[in-house]
Amino acid sequence: MKRVRVIIMPKEGLLDPQGRAVEEMLKENGFNVENVRVGKVVEMSVGEDVDLKTLVEKYLINPLIEEYEIEELSPKDEG
Amino acid sequence: MKRVRVIIMPKEGLLDPQGRAVEEMLKENGFNVENVRVGKVVEMSVGEDVDLKTLVEKYLINPLIEEYEIEELSPKDEG
Repeated sequence: MKRVRVIIMPKEGLLDPQGRAVEEMLKENGFNVENVRVGKVVEMSVGEDVDLKTLVEKYLINPLIEEYEIEELSPKDEG
Repeated sequence: MKRVRVIIMPKEGLLDPQGRAVEEMLKENGFNVENVRVGKVVEMSVGEDVDLKTLVEKYLINPLIEEYEIEELSPKDEG
């Protein structure tokens, strides 16, 4: 098995109300931040036989409104 | 400004009902996966003056139940 992290973000250009709310809250608290986007992350151990592209695109995301990237984590991140 | 990504995960050892639900759903669909954890991710552009540790620990996470890591994104990821 290998440990992977899937980062799922709202597509560029689409509204991200949660990101906007976080941005406003941070600005109200004096932080110099811009273009805040909020997404989700799924970490998992997957068998070598797993078709990760199908898993992610069919079961984890909505391809109409979300985009993703996959990071492979080092064995020390196994948990 | 620099672009950063904050990965926020439930702490090791704490229950992660959302991760468990995703894991069961993937297994029911035939995927060989283990130890699925679900978290969130916040991407933002921050000024050089921003105290990122305070921003994250005071405003983005609950340190009792969540842990985080910060990745710096390359300029091409600016958006």
